[in-house]
Amino acid sequence: MSTEAVRASQEQTLANAKVRLAGIAGGFIHRDTPSGDFGLIGLAVMGQNLILNGADHGFTVVAFNRTVSKVDSFLANEAKGKSIVGASSIQDLCAKLKTPRRVMLLVKAGSAVDDFIEALLPFLEKGDIIIDGGNSHFPDSNRRTQYLAGKGIRFVGAGVSGGEEGARTGPSIMPGGNEEAWPYIKDIFQSISAKSDGEACCEWVGDEGSGHFVKMVHNGIEYGDMQLICEAYDILKRGIGLSNKEIGDVFTEWNKGVLDSFLIEITRDIMYYNDPADGKPLLDKILDSAGQKGTGKWTAINALDLGMPVTLIGEAVFARCLSAQKAERGRASEILEGPQIPPFTGDKKAFIDDLEQALYASKIISYAQGFMLLREAAKEYKWKLAMPEIALMWRGGCIIRSVFLKDITKAFRTNPQLENLLFDDFFNKAIHNAQGGWRRSIIRGIELGIATPCFSTALAFYDGYRSKVLPANLLQAQRDYFGAHTFRVLPEHASETLKEGADIHINWTGRGGNVSASTYLA
Amino acid sequence: MSTEAVRASQEQTLANAKVRLAGIAGGFIHRDTPSGDFGLIGLAVMGQNLILNGADHGFTVVAFNRTVSKVDSFLANEAKGKSIVGASSIQDLCAKLKTPRRVMLLVKAGSAVDDFIEALLPFLEKGDIIIDGGNSHFPDSNRRTQYLAGKGIRFVGAGVSGGEEGARTGPSIMPGGNEEAWPYIKDIFQSISAKSDGEACCEWVGDEGSGHFVKMVHNGIEYGDMQLICEAYDILKRGIGLSNKEIGDVFTEWNKGVLDSFLIEITRDIMYYNDPADGKPLLDKILDSAGQKGTGKWTAINALDLGMPVTLIGEAVFARCLSAQKAERGRASEILEGPQIPPFTGDKKAFIDDLEQALYASKIISYAQGFMLLREAAKEYKWKLAMPEIALMWRGGCIIRSVFLKDITKAFRTNPQLENLLFDDFFNKAIHNAQGGWRRSIIRGIELGIATPCFSTALAFYDGYRSKVLPANLLQAQRDYFGAHTFRVLPEHASETLKEGADIHINWTGRGGNVSASTYLA
Repeated sequence: MSTEAVRASQEQTLANAKVRLAGIAGGFIHRDTPSGDFGLIGLAVMGQNLILNGADHGFTVVAFNRTVSKVDSFLANEAKGKSIVGASSIQDLCAKLKTPRRVMLLVKAGSAVDDFIEALLPFLEKGDIIIDGGNSHFPDSNRRTQYLAGKGIRFVGAGVSGGEEGARTGPSIMPGGNEEAWPYIKDIFQSISAKSDGEACCEWVGDEGSGHFVKMVHNGIEYGDMQLICEAYDILKRGIGLSNKEIGDVFTEWNKGVLDSFLIEITRDIMYYNDPADGKPLLDKILDSAGQKGTGKWTAINALDLGMPVTLIGEAVFARCLSAQKAERGRASEILEGPQIPPFTGDKKAFIDDLEQALYASKIISYAQGFMLLREAAKEYKWKLAMPEIALMWRGGCIIRSVFLKDITKAFRTNPQLENLLFDDFFNKAIHNAQGGWRRSIIRGIELGIATPCFSTALAFYDGYRSKVLPANLLQAQRDYFGAHTFRVLPEHASETLKEGADIHINWTGRGGNVSASTYLA
Repeated sequence: MSTEAVRASQEQTLANAKVRLAGIAGGFIHRDTPSGDFGLIGLAVMGQNLILNGADHGFTVVAFNRTVSKVDSFLANEAKGKSIVGASSIQDLCAKLKTPRRVMLLVKAGSAVDDFIEALLPFLEKGDIIIDGGNSHFPDSNRRTQYLAGKGIRFVGAGVSGGEEGARTGPSIMPGGNEEAWPYIKDIFQSISAKSDGEACCEWVGDEGSGHFVKMVHNGIEYGDMQLICEAYDILKRGIGLSNKEIGDVFTEWNKGVLDSFLIEITRDIMYYNDPADGKPLLDKILDSAGQKGTGKWTAINALDLGMPVTLIGEAVFARCLSAQKAERGRASEILEGPQIPPFTGDKKAFIDDLEQALYASKIISYAQGFMLLREAAKEYKWKLAMPEIALMWRGGCIIRSVFLKDITKAFRTNPQLENLLFDDFFNKAIHNAQGGWRRSIIRGIELGIATPCFSTALAFYDGYRSKVLPANLLQAQRDYFGAHTFRVLPEHASETLKEGADIHINWTGRGGNVSASTYLA
């Protein structure tokens, strides 16, 4: 940050503190002078909770919603008695904000964000700040940063994770965009964000849409984590035949070890939750069909675009797609056969311990892949992305928060240039310790006919990644054979006719021509 | 096809026959009257070979290339003595074509196609036909069909597969776009295309970019087939320790059974091919790093967009991405451990037979997934796609041609409404027979530490697809727990409080609010 930015930041912090003191001392709102520290548009669950969170931290928040009745209802209920002001229109919202105005949007990603930006513009001044806290696609945030910079408005695309609960008590916030805005929002964001070991789970991410990009990858990883837990659950349920209560006990244990995390914790709660109507597990009544139209898909597509093998997120998205084919699966289940699952007779504890290792090792792979994607994105989009800070932001507040992320933060703090998470000593040892149980668990799934797409793809990645030589030489030979696509030679086998670095085409059949496919690629 | 179109088709066939007779009788080209049956722009290997193929079938082809010296060299060599005419410019090309002019582009997909279209337009008349035979992305072909229709020009986006060899001797051609063009190109296309059991491997696919869409899926499946073969090769090489010659013998055998196909055949040839310089297998000298910037990636992205679990193509693309990380894999191989591969001691034949079944079963899954994608695309884009004709076009000429595709054609001809390939009796039995060897092969790969990402994902899909209940109920519970995303109830568990079809939100913790995430979806 520039010296100027640091000074601005300090001034702002002081100003904020004064306002907070005044608010606490006065206990009422002046209607004539703007009192709002920041405004928030969009009163769905995340928006409401972020407002309440802001008010808890002494900020005066101005609330607005397209359907204005929602504002009134919010003020009369959840917001009652707090430093929360309602706005009856966009103009009213802007009039009630101190300058530079800070307006946060928590509306549906897409055209709604552009619509609100356009609606805000007539009531904003140069230097005001618009923060998009929704799940916008990062190219949109690239575009909006540039568009608004041209109008003197500072745009911030901030990923916010933590769901309903996180928004209320402290989410993870990943802001990127126009860095000039950071000094004016840092104090607010770091106050309302989660803390992990005393550090705020919010830091400046980087240029343009990088905040939303990091949030996107976070969500992709979240897809992966959730699917991995589902696979473990399925094996515990169908493979060993445990009851929900027993599975809850397994997750209770796992939550004390290396898997200690928010998602394991809520899975435990879900396993124990019974339908109040009949006292039976609610989980068993829930339709096994999941949606996937969001950020997980974007992550997988981005991985394909950047050529990074982020296989675990890809499989997690596809697993949701398959789950959505509920009716077709029902018909398939009647005609497609598989192994019979026998009553479990082996050593339950050993089986469950293996499964814990499978989950842990697969998770390590998923995060290693996620950071490979971040690394490539930084290169491709010319963003500075500080890996330790990203891991730090994910340690608390967000859906994927875990003890595990503290180890990742440590790995990147020890070596910010770390090429791959698997090269870090801690994770290197961890995956070596885990791989016996990991392999056994997948083998059992295969023998029992229980699908473990993410466990399996993680292991395939591991075995492929640690292979100095992969069978892609055959693939290149095939491409040259049928399409004259050329191949290169291994340096150790370079020769007079097979030159290192040259694109070589061989007439494999003696029939084809000598023309290589320079302009036509299949 | 309309009555008018049928009549036009018949007239055109007659006209073509006359011209061919004249060509054969005369043996020379009149320079003053247009003699060209069709023009071809782009003299890379595919273009040259398609021209030679057209000339072999009695058509007079006018050849043009941006670098005009390539035309001269082609005419002086490969094209010498054939019914091939050179053009010195776009204008010259168009002047040498009979009307309605048929101009085929075989240039690099992307802006080059648009550039040539614009360059052609001043010299074309209403009713003329532009055919893009390159690997264009189907949305571009949608756009070009509409754009050119507005100018009275008929656009055809034709997927062409078969590589160098196929283009020369008979490729698979998948034309779609403006159906008015079909009567004027049918005879040419069906003459130069491959034949399978006497039927041309070329039929009208459908509207707009559907021809290129079908080609895209074909290429995705090709990626999958190639990766599956690579995985089998890797296990034969590293798992059993066979020599290239011995592996060639295995592929020779496989090519006599259910796997009989072009790709198995060329793999056999590749295994037997020795570097003339030293007599050692050339394959072992080829760099194991493959590109993936093409149609395989598009297929995977489209699958994600349409929400179809086309996992095998996805993994095949990612396998190429991983292969491309050659240097990083080298470093990883030094610090990441796995099982030691012991000298093979078991029953080699049984092992190889299992592997054949693994390859076969995985291939069935891949094609089943591919046809799921085609079905969904027809729905999403409102195209009529005739499944039996698509399988028919892929039976011969193209890279994925195989005995297998005859079985698929048969399955869809028996039941054009077939919901899934796995529901067909033949494939149902085939996969049941194969699954023992399939499971054993993957288990051996896991035990040996040899990656089989596509075998594995295929099996995971099979076991997931035939599961009436998947663990996605937990996923939905988690999403509702942390993000108030709601879930639905299984019909058999619907109750007063859990209504069928309703989006239900539960306050799992007793702490959160009752607001569901109607407008904010994570």
